[in-house]
Amino acid sequence: MATLCKPSIAVPDNIITMEETLDLARTLHAGHAQLPLVLRLIGNTGVRTRHLVQPIEETLKHPGFEERNKVYEAEAKARVPEVVRTALANAELGAEDIDLIVYVSCTGFMMPSMTAWLINAMGFRDDTRQLPIAQLGCAAGGAAINRAHDFCLAYPGSNVLIVACEFCSLCYQPVDIGVGSLLSNGLFGDAVAAAVVRGEGGTGMSLERNGSHLVPDTEDWISYAVRGTGFHFQLDKRVPTTMKMLAPALRTLSEQHSWDVSGLDFYIIHAGGPRILDDLCHFLDLGPEMFAHSRTTLTERGNIASCVVFDALNRLFEEGKVTEGARGLIAGFGPGITAEMALGAWRDPAQVAAHAVASVPRGRSAAQERAGV
Amino acid sequence: MATLCKPSIAVPDNIITMEETLDLARTLHAGHAQLPLVLRLIGNTGVRTRHLVQPIEETLKHPGFEERNKVYEAEAKARVPEVVRTALANAELGAEDIDLIVYVSCTGFMMPSMTAWLINAMGFRDDTRQLPIAQLGCAAGGAAINRAHDFCLAYPGSNVLIVACEFCSLCYQPVDIGVGSLLSNGLFGDAVAAAVVRGEGGTGMSLERNGSHLVPDTEDWISYAVRGTGFHFQLDKRVPTTMKMLAPALRTLSEQHSWDVSGLDFYIIHAGGPRILDDLCHFLDLGPEMFAHSRTTLTERGNIASCVVFDALNRLFEEGKVTEGARGLIAGFGPGITAEMALGAWRDPAQVAAHAVASVPRGRSAAQERAGV
Repeated sequence: MATLCKPSIAVPDNIITMEETLDLARTLHAGHAQLPLVLRLIGNTGVRTRHLVQPIEETLKHPGFEERNKVYEAEAKARVPEVVRTALANAELGAEDIDLIVYVSCTGFMMPSMTAWLINAMGFRDDTRQLPIAQLGCAAGGAAINRAHDFCLAYPGSNVLIVACEFCSLCYQPVDIGVGSLLSNGLFGDAVAAAVVRGEGGTGMSLERNGSHLVPDTEDWISYAVRGTGFHFQLDKRVPTTMKMLAPALRTLSEQHSWDVSGLDFYIIHAGGPRILDDLCHFLDLGPEMFAHSRTTLTERGNIASCVVFDALNRLFEEGKVTEGARGLIAGFGPGITAEMALGAWRDPAQVAAHAVASVPRGRSAAQERAGV
Repeated sequence: MATLCKPSIAVPDNIITMEETLDLARTLHAGHAQLPLVLRLIGNTGVRTRHLVQPIEETLKHPGFEERNKVYEAEAKARVPEVVRTALANAELGAEDIDLIVYVSCTGFMMPSMTAWLINAMGFRDDTRQLPIAQLGCAAGGAAINRAHDFCLAYPGSNVLIVACEFCSLCYQPVDIGVGSLLSNGLFGDAVAAAVVRGEGGTGMSLERNGSHLVPDTEDWISYAVRGTGFHFQLDKRVPTTMKMLAPALRTLSEQHSWDVSGLDFYIIHAGGPRILDDLCHFLDLGPEMFAHSRTTLTERGNIASCVVFDALNRLFEEGKVTEGARGLIAGFGPGITAEMALGAWRDPAQVAAHAVASVPRGRSAAQERAGV
């Protein structure tokens, strides 16, 4: 049994509001023929605030790919250890208990990857497996959870640390002024996240089944152009329509697990944009409140790429309403177009124990209580 | 049980010999203060020929990171399908039988990665899991085998396709003229490789145990500097000494498996350079002939990064001498400095069947034959 424990999230102190984003777009692209459309699209994102690793004046400069990537490395090394420590504490484990580190990030590139630095800097064992993934974009949060789940299936009792580090603002490209780029400039935010998947014990989402789905022939809908100036994010206007194609994949995976995808207790969905969430609610026949945590992530932090699912999951933990046995779905979406999906049930030994204690005066066991006898 | 089946390798037609490499170094760096050292180091590699995706005149130009990466993408799409088809045929499987594609490559960057393209272009199922790894360098061949092994442990009976695509010549950087860079320019070659790990059945190396080891505080010994001109490979002169630190990790993993690392039947070792192979022979107390296949890979193709272990393993298959039950080790080494290690025993159902048939006239079963009774 693999349990995805409470994630840890951190966002930088530099905040940019929707109003500031719109003002910037008006200033920087005053003569742009499609400025009204851009302003409307940014307004429609519903993103109230985003957090950036650098002040906006620095963010808007492009000092070159080399300098950008150095900022990435420095900021990653400055910000990741804290979320890792908190994620380990959330899982009640130490660095020495971790058997695999999955590090996902598409907004900077290092070789060796941050996995090697983390092992050296934070006291992980020298036989810790390293799995850095750079090319799954926003789907990488879901992919990290799924590969961690697989690892715990392969090695029962092992523990996996997941780290997601996304500084989307370091991929800002001043020369890209298409509508998709200008929308992206108002949509993406920066964050770092970590979470532990415990092979035994732990409180959180007990991972039961995972799956991946590629929407055929949509490779160029979300992509990077790799240039001397770094990674240029390219967003096709058809992307918001992908939920019609991905909802059936979510349904199929659930059916394989004998679950009704429209009848689950919680949903942690990649908040790529408001249309993604609205459409998926529609196609899964769910009320908008079912994606409340993903919506809050989007509103308060923007699309933080592979960190989204961890931020939304953290909100589910913080809310404290989910109960033992509740069934849920995690879904990350990203380039490919790929969905990375996970199904699981809530596991909370403390709830079960409290329940058992509460039932003692009545002379019934916890097992009897659960069985309703 | 997961069996690593016969790999498939392809190299480009453009060949550069040791003599041509030395002539080039003499011409391009005529005034270089350390030219004699560079020539001696290149001579010592023992690399007789290397294969390049472009003619040498094109290889020596640097048309920019964007253009280089476009060549990477075009060449990968042109060359990978053939090795994939052959690897599938070697494993007697079709594209529809594959559950996970692991794609390793550190010499180009695409998002979405080649995994998405392969699924679309070659008829893999749309629920095939994708695992692209770009940041493990030369160790990625071993890592791919190990993650494939893990996946088959998690999902018994599943099948994994591994693809390694390394066009090291596309990382040639004319401005880098340190000794380590000039040596690298004479050491690395281009290749593509594929192999299937079958969850059930198949002929090849039955994967039994894997492990990873990071040599502490050696992150900057093998690394990329990421610049506007692309990936700049940085090789520290201490790298050839790492076998003293990695040999104990190989020994420890073998001991965990109750095997003597110095007494195995075959060794597939990353041919990073001649010193790597010589030193590891020394520290494992092995004769040089035990690494013959890795040496041939190095001599005929140079260091082809994550493709090395597949090329050497292919030679082991082609030689045809390894017999049922033979025990072996695969080890990839790369940035971190990281070793990715796998232990397994040869599995050849045809050999066993032939043995059984041969033993029939004597009225003994194959089991009796094996037991020596």
